[in-house]
Amino acid sequence: MRKIKCIVTYDGSRFSGYQTQPNQRTVQGELEKALAKIHKGKQIGVHASGRTDAGVHAFCQVFHFETSYGIPEEKWKKALNSLLPGDIHIKRSAEVSSSFHSRFDVKEKEYRYYVNNSEEPNVFRRNYVFHFPYRLNLQSMQEACRYFEGSHDFTSFSSAKATTKGSKVRTIYHASCIERDGYIEFIFRGNGFLYNMVRIMVGTLLDVGQGRKKPEEIQSIIEKTDRKFAGETAPPQGLYLWDVIYKGNREENPL
Amino acid sequence: MRKIKCIVTYDGSRFSGYQTQPNQRTVQGELEKALAKIHKGKQIGVHASGRTDAGVHAFCQVFHFETSYGIPEEKWKKALNSLLPGDIHIKRSAEVSSSFHSRFDVKEKEYRYYVNNSEEPNVFRRNYVFHFPYRLNLQSMQEACRYFEGSHDFTSFSSAKATTKGSKVRTIYHASCIERDGYIEFIFRGNGFLYNMVRIMVGTLLDVGQGRKKPEEIQSIIEKTDRKFAGETAPPQGLYLWDVIYKGNREENPL
Repeated sequence: MRKIKCIVTYDGSRFSGYQTQPNQRTVQGELEKALAKIHKGKQIGVHASGRTDAGVHAFCQVFHFETSYGIPEEKWKKALNSLLPGDIHIKRSAEVSSSFHSRFDVKEKEYRYYVNNSEEPNVFRRNYVFHFPYRLNLQSMQEACRYFEGSHDFTSFSSAKATTKGSKVRTIYHASCIERDGYIEFIFRGNGFLYNMVRIMVGTLLDVGQGRKKPEEIQSIIEKTDRKFAGETAPPQGLYLWDVIYKGNREENPL
Repeated sequence: MRKIKCIVTYDGSRFSGYQTQPNQRTVQGELEKALAKIHKGKQIGVHASGRTDAGVHAFCQVFHFETSYGIPEEKWKKALNSLLPGDIHIKRSAEVSSSFHSRFDVKEKEYRYYVNNSEEPNVFRRNYVFHFPYRLNLQSMQEACRYFEGSHDFTSFSSAKATTKGSKVRTIYHASCIERDGYIEFIFRGNGFLYNMVRIMVGTLLDVGQGRKKPEEIQSIIEKTDRKFAGETAPPQGLYLWDVIYKGNREENPL
């Protein structure tokens, strides 16, 4: 068996999230349908770096699958793209060592979140940015971002619905927000993220931007390890899984 | 009766075009549904500057309607937006003189067309630009644009399905294409456009860009007054009704 790793981008607007669910249109469902077509009806399981929720996008998501087919590694991209719907596109494909795992070998993930802070909505971007027309202090939000960096128990920034049993300690390597092309761009890089964590961080930063919370309150909210002290969960359409970085060297991990 | 003029923007992706059609989701249908709600169920006819096809967008479309209601002119915007779906947004509203007509008083229209000429598609823009991954010579297309300018019989650039009986002479004031933000932007301004005219002009310019036609051939194609000599009709998703300019002075026409 060979193991093929793919980088995929998708528009989450019309999916009920990444993960397969009965009677729902999902990214994983579409990927597995395309792979089954290539493999003459045989079911091929797809393993991604993690899930994304309904409406959440991926600029670069990673998945792998195993196959006995001899298609050259870079040709899987074309074969899959010819069968996938327009809202999913494979950017690259490559063969990886049998030990690679797209979920267990993740070293770092990057998420970005986009806010349209102008008074007027943009109908063409309504599924791709969050329209938030209230006045925001960018500098306060930038200051607040720094309190997220480092290793913390992020229970306060994790959905109460989360089923994770393990540790809620995560390390954030980078958190920032800047204004770019008329949008506010939030960037978060870390070794892992809890369920809804980025959206709750953004919701809380928007409270800071409005002056409803002070930047330094981020620290005390983290320390309280209680979801109810953080802000609202920002809506899904502004969120992008932007990049996934893996352990191992370039030979083991060519993409 | 008062006459209210509105500037509206819409994402054409999920509409069967502007004009009302039975059992179809249309922009006009949604506008009239919202107006009926405001007018306690009474049907209020909406008159736009012209139609747009399924999948075609509007950055600025104009329509008017008549009402006996005393809502202040600028408040119609808010009243309508609170009832309209997310893919339609009223940008401005104002009262105009009873002699104003959004179709008959048009002096000039501007259309824009966007092409993603990179090799890779962008899943987030698939409904908003035309992905055309073949090599294009921008300078040839720019040269070709000049032949469209002026007053010509544009029969060759009009859909064979067009039902217009009148003259097919139109005046193009401006035709250009430039590269902007990684996209090719085509701009056309004229006193009027025939059915599918912009999309056929773009399709023909893409032939020129690929070297399949010479820039100066645009002139002979116009002279032949026969649809079959022009290029293919470019797909709808790249097209935007960008602006509508009216006759009359600022007092008569405040928007």
